[in-house]
Amino acid sequence: MKLPVFALALTLGLSAPFFAHAQFQKPEDAIKYRQAAFTLMGTHFGRIAGMAQGKIPFDAKIAQANADVLATVVNLPYTAFGEGTDLGDTKAKPAIWKEMPKFKELAEKMQTEVGKLQAATKTGNLDQIKIAVGDVGKSCKACHDNYREK
Amino acid sequence: MKLPVFALALTLGLSAPFFAHAQFQKPEDAIKYRQAAFTLMGTHFGRIAGMAQGKIPFDAKIAQANADVLATVVNLPYTAFGEGTDLGDTKAKPAIWKEMPKFKELAEKMQTEVGKLQAATKTGNLDQIKIAVGDVGKSCKACHDNYREK
Repeated sequence: MKLPVFALALTLGLSAPFFAHAQFQKPEDAIKYRQAAFTLMGTHFGRIAGMAQGKIPFDAKIAQANADVLATVVNLPYTAFGEGTDLGDTKAKPAIWKEMPKFKELAEKMQTEVGKLQAATKTGNLDQIKIAVGDVGKSCKACHDNYREK
Repeated sequence: MKLPVFALALTLGLSAPFFAHAQFQKPEDAIKYRQAAFTLMGTHFGRIAGMAQGKIPFDAKIAQANADVLATVVNLPYTAFGEGTDLGDTKAKPAIWKEMPKFKELAEKMQTEVGKLQAATKTGNLDQIKIAVGDVGKSCKACHDNYREK
């Protein structure tokens, strides 16, 4: 028997905000959605990271605008890893569904680090932004190393 | 000579917020990005529309949360229609680049209607939400009819 993803979230005892919107008609809709959310995360993080690395001229306002978008979209993809979304056009490793509490922990860590990056961009201090960018980057990598096919 | 998309925005006299983040390494990055943004728009709007149509149980808080995400992502895709992004894996019609002021007008109309929908979800009044959903839906359709391949 397959549970709807929202029911799954309740079954796992996950906090409501984490999976609150996790309703998809079909598994492929969830996969497309989470990939879209990661695409936006990567783009907006990439613009701030580019500034931190000196590849893009630093502009505090633009950094902050990108961090604000990032702080919204970072909440989205993790709502779309419900049961039955492990197959199909996805690089998500089956380990995610075997180790959901660990995956959730890494997701929440990412959300925390993005919150810190958003705060750093509000200061306009490039050194603080660089540190926060590094921490977000580590958080991306931690999840990708464990849970994304190369 | 090809102008970077940001320079293009300035050339066209478009307002800074509209194209402020429009920086992509390659045209295919812009195409992937805008498709991702539309995927998120469609998903989050769809959840509110589903409530308006009685297909999903109405929950004022969930409607509002979806509208809040929608109000952020509605600002994103239109930053990614710069010069040179008319070719490739896209359903965007060439008419967009020939009629950029009209396209921009429809984009801004969409952003306005989403703002109204967000306000309606804050009231928690389903009748108001239904009206706003209808107006957003018309705004989707106006652009799709003119500028998206079937």
